[in-house]
This record gives sequence, structure tokens and C-alpha cells, in this order.
Amino acid sequence: MIGDCMENDVITKLNNLGKKMVEQIKMGESPHFTTILRSRGNTYYNEKEKVLELGDKTEKRTFANVAQARKFMQTLAIASKCKKFVRENLHTSIRGLYYQLKFSLGENLEENLFSEQSESNPLIEDLEVALNVKREDFNLNTDRKGFVAGRMIIEDSFGGEKTRIDCSKQGRSGWSIPSDVDNGMEILDLKADYVLVIEKDAMWQRLNEDKFWRKNNCIIITPKGQASRGTRRLLRKLADMGLPIYVFTDCDAWGWYIYWTIKTGSMNLAYLGKNIAVPEAKFVGVTMQDIKDFEFLSKLTIKTKDVDIKRAKEMLSYPWINQYKEWVNELKTVIRTKRKIEQDALQGQRLTFVGEYLSEKIKNKKFLP
Amino acid sequence: MIGDCMENDVITKLNNLGKKMVEQIKMGESPHFTTILRSRGNTYYNEKEKVLELGDKTEKRTFANVAQARKFMQTLAIASKCKKFVRENLHTSIRGLYYQLKFSLGENLEENLFSEQSESNPLIEDLEVALNVKREDFNLNTDRKGFVAGRMIIEDSFGGEKTRIDCSKQGRSGWSIPSDVDNGMEILDLKADYVLVIEKDAMWQRLNEDKFWRKNNCIIITPKGQASRGTRRLLRKLADMGLPIYVFTDCDAWGWYIYWTIKTGSMNLAYLGKNIAVPEAKFVGVTMQDIKDFEFLSKLTIKTKDVDIKRAKEMLSYPWINQYKEWVNELKTVIRTKRKIEQDALQGQRLTFVGEYLSEKIKNKKFLP
Repeated sequence: MIGDCMENDVITKLNNLGKKMVEQIKMGESPHFTTILRSRGNTYYNEKEKVLELGDKTEKRTFANVAQARKFMQTLAIASKCKKFVRENLHTSIRGLYYQLKFSLGENLEENLFSEQSESNPLIEDLEVALNVKREDFNLNTDRKGFVAGRMIIEDSFGGEKTRIDCSKQGRSGWSIPSDVDNGMEILDLKADYVLVIEKDAMWQRLNEDKFWRKNNCIIITPKGQASRGTRRLLRKLADMGLPIYVFTDCDAWGWYIYWTIKTGSMNLAYLGKNIAVPEAKFVGVTMQDIKDFEFLSKLTIKTKDVDIKRAKEMLSYPWINQYKEWVNELKTVIRTKRKIEQDALQGQRLTFVGEYLSEKIKNKKFLP
Repeated sequence: MIGDCMENDVITKLNNLGKKMVEQIKMGESPHFTTILRSRGNTYYNEKEKVLELGDKTEKRTFANVAQARKFMQTLAIASKCKKFVRENLHTSIRGLYYQLKFSLGENLEENLFSEQSESNPLIEDLEVALNVKREDFNLNTDRKGFVAGRMIIEDSFGGEKTRIDCSKQGRSGWSIPSDVDNGMEILDLKADYVLVIEKDAMWQRLNEDKFWRKNNCIIITPKGQASRGTRRLLRKLADMGLPIYVFTDCDAWGWYIYWTIKTGSMNLAYLGKNIAVPEAKFVGVTMQDIKDFEFLSKLTIKTKDVDIKRAKEMLSYPWINQYKEWVNELKTVIRTKRKIEQDALQGQRLTFVGEYLSEKIKNKKFLP
């Protein structure tokens, strides 16, 4: 698992990587380093920690291997650039890194390896895993997404300045969650009983307009769909500060995926393990049971798509999900009835109902695990 | 063209729509209203205003027409819901409106007409055009996108409270541009010589970290790709306050499209005409000429895709583009060389170069029209 890393640690780790290779060369060995195998076969659900993690299968990256030589060299060039970024105290994107490498190394770079969209640049992941450092600690920004409102004060040290941001004074916009919520960022004050995560930005705006966070003394966060790395780290930090995390999504394939990614982490970021997962998270809705409990919802369900049924069946096969009879019931109901329901449907009767629904369910602890 | 509309105007306009129909019924006529035809054939480039606009072809919507009756009824139901939203001073999304209608009207609603993604819900557009009101004035939120940093103070009146937001004190995050920048939102203070629009969020973050806006006394805005309605309105407002608008995008199909949409408006929002367009905007880069002017860039170009060439040829056929010889040269160079260049490439040499490049080009007024 990859934790929060201070600037000096990163430089030291990068220096040590280089020094070790110099020694290897002096010893007449091919320079090499070891990383952990990132594959489905080496991804496990850790029952104690309740998160998805990598196992202990390792892989050796070495220069003296025709298949690996070029990528090995590129990885070292990335390490060198990242050391420079951290030293200069400047940030860039994966795309910015790509052009820095292209400038230094010339044309022989696979462009698609360094696309901003690519969630899993394998060379950077190699470094993250081998050195036990997050890419954000290398001053590499990832796509930011997500907004916060509530009584939380952030101190953001950025570009040589400190700014205090009061998330209760951001009007209709909220505070935008950055790529990196660890380095140069501190939560100075937090007055809330829990965190409510709301799948859709439009619904977050609805609840922000109703000042749900003030009336219910909570922090409201929208990941705007699937949660970014920054949002997942922020949720982990808030959980570490003792706040319960409640998640409110659609009752459909995408909504469940968003919840379980927040809770257990995801396959493709399993190497970040428990630093990016919130196993304490609970699911507040929308559920198939709600359709029975709130009569007006029954006319607001919609037909499932193939992807919903396929996903529900997949989820039923995961031991970390099918251990909970509540989730088994929920998923089987969707498969049987072929109906699903969106969080937006809660506005059908009146716009403000969604806040009443949430505070009621949270008060009565009507959660799925 | 559809302007900024106060709450009372909107209610009055909606009331008048209803009253007119009651009169029509009393006169023994079928209730009806007139809207302007929104089609390519009725979309024109207004040479005087330099924006894309609808022409004067109209269409009649009427209840007594088998093909129109159901949609006519839905349109009136939308008008009624929107009046309620404005009266209650509550906002929702298109999806929220969909569920309100579904709750009231039952199952007979075409779900896809009311998708959040659908840029052009034809029934709501009918109302916007017929009443000369933006959907934001109906309290319907559209997808928000885009960030601002610089010396601008906003007063955001929202949910019954006023908040002051200082866009120079938002740290690494910036101020997120909301869906509606007209109603309940005022620019209290603005200290800047110009506005720089930066296609990509990652590049905006780079320039924000360098405090480009402070060093160059400007406002920096990223639309995060194609500009949202809110971002386009904000740019129009800033241009109305006398600030030049400079746009910085990739030199490729998507970058050009972003620029020309900001400048002349777009086909599908032509009904919003000059209220959403900034014909004064100028293009600061990246250009094919830059590759000659900055030698290191020549090794950082990338191969065009079919879409780039196709788009360049299309643009050459538009009279509002091919009137400028600079753009004709630019596009022909791309078609001939089959090379393009991204704004991120400017970081290839060193991360801070992009700021030097921009301030130099802006100082020397090296713009494309």
C-alpha cells in the first residue's frame, strides 16, 4: 500500500533507486529493480482490511533483456524527470511528462502510453509500486473531479502561497477537489457528523441549494460519477478523522460500481490498497426496498439495461459482496424485476423531498453494508 | 437572441403564454404558439454581429394536430413545472424535470428526450425560443464545467444567502463556473487587462501554479474542453466589461472547434445567438507558425488523425473562417504537412516555458483573428 509521502522521502527514494543501479553496474550486474505484479491474478480481497490489494508476486525489470531494455530506459527517464519536478516544486500532467520525455528522448515514445485518459500508465505505476510512492507525490497531477460543501476549512499551500478555503462559503459552486489532497494541503477545521457522497453533480447542487449540509451538520461531496483518485483519498482522510461515510447513488450498475470502488478500492488501483479505499462506507440509497417504502417511487422506476443485469450477476459472484445478504437481496430483486431507479427520481414528487428522504434514512440508520 | 431574464419577467412570460392559449380556446381556436425553426437551413452567420444565429423562419406548435398533440401537452407541462420552480426559487436538472413530469403525467414520456446528456431537449428549446428566455432562467441547471483564477470578486446569491468569492484566493482549485452566471450572480470587482481561455484543465493548473494571472494581470479560465453554456455566458459578460478574450488551444480539430464555438457560437445553440458568443475573441495559439518560431517544437508535433484533416477542410468551407487568410494558411499547412501540435508540447523544454510563450505572444499581439 502506498501512503502519503513527503518531498524529501520522494527524493531520497528516487536517489536510492539510482544509487542501487550504479552499484549493480559496478558489480557487473545488469541494472534492475523489483516491482509487484499488477494483474487480476495477483489482486486479492484482503478480508482483514476489507480492501482490494495486490498479492506478493513480484516482477523484475531489467536493462539486459531485449524485451525490456527500451521500457527500462524510459522508466528511468521518468524517474529522473519526476525528481526534477519535485526539486523545482512544479507540477505537471502525464501529458506534460510525455512531452518532457519526448523532448529528451526523441521520437521513440509510444504516445498512447502517456495519454491523460490512460488511468494506468504502466511505467509510472512500476515506479509507484517499486518505490511505494503515489504519482501525486512525484508532482504528477491526475484528472481532478468532485466538489465539496460543508463546515470544513482547508489550508492549501500552493505555488509558494497559503490559502484558506472555507467549504461553507463557496456558494453554488463548492470547493473543487484537486488531484492531490495530501501534499501541501491540510484540513484545519472540520465540523460535521458524517460525510454524504452524492453520485451526481446535479443532485449535489440540489442538496447544496437546500443547505442540506448545514441542516444536517454534514459534509456533502459529489465525485461526479466514478470517484477520482483525489476524491477517494479525501474520503479516506475524512474517515480517518472519524467521520462515517454514507454513499448515495443510483440503483443501477454504475451506481453500485461507484459505491464499491469507494468502499473496497478497484482492480486497476489495487496497488494503492487501503490508502484509497473506505471499507467503513455505507450505502444509503437508492435501493429496491425504497420502492416499497415510498409508494410514489414505484411509478418512477425505469427498465434495466443489459449492463445492469450483467453487472448485478458479476457482483453476486464477488465474495466481498455476496457475504452480505442485504446486497444479495438487492441485486436479485433487480435481476428478477428488471427495474432500476435513479437518485433523481426522488425529486419526482417535489424537489426538496430528496433531502427529507436522506435525513430520515440516515437518522434511522437504514443502510446497506 | 435570448438575453438575461429576471424572475418576474419569466413568470410574466409564462403567464402570458397560458393566457393567450385560454383566449385562443375561448375564440374556438386550437391553442398554439409560435417558435423559430431550429435547423441548419435556418441557421445563418450574421455578418454584422459576426455570430451564428437563427433566421426568421417560424414554426407553429398546435394542440389540434395528431402529430403534435402529445408533445404540445408535454411542452405546456414543462412550462407549468418551470413556473413552479421559479416561484419556489428552487433549481433542478433536466433529469429532475423529467421525473417531475413523469410523476405528473405518468408513463408516457420519452425518457431519452430528457437525458442530462441531451444538449438539445427540443421541447425546452421550443419554450426558450418562443418566450425568448434561457433555460437557466427557468431554474433548470445545465452541466457545469470550467474554472477561473484571477482578480475577480463574485457575489453569489444562492439558497437565500449571499457569498463573496474571491477568484484570486482559491488556491490550486480555482472557482468552478456554475450553470447560471446571470441570475443571482454579480461581478463586484474585476482587475485584469484581459482574459486567457486555456483549453485543458491540466494546462490551466500549470499556469495557475506559476501565478500567470498575477504576473500578467489577467483572468485565466479553462472551459475543460468544449465550453459549457455557463462558461460561454461568463466570457460574454467579461467581454462586455471591456476585457479582450484570448483563446489558447491545441492546434487540432478539437482545439479549433473550441475556439470557433466561443467566437461565433455553435450550430446547435444558434438560438442563443450573440448572448453566448464572443466575436471579439482572438486565437493566441498553438499555431503551425509556432513550430517555425520555436525550434524545439518541431520535434514535438504529432501526426494528424482523419478527423483533423476532415475538420480543417470543413472549416475552409465556412465563409466566417475562410474570410481570414491567416486561418486559411493555418488550416492548409495542417492539411499539407499532416502534423498537429498540442498545447502541452510547450512544456517539453521546461515546465514554465508555456507562461513565457503566452506573455510574449500576447505582448506582441501575435494572434489569429
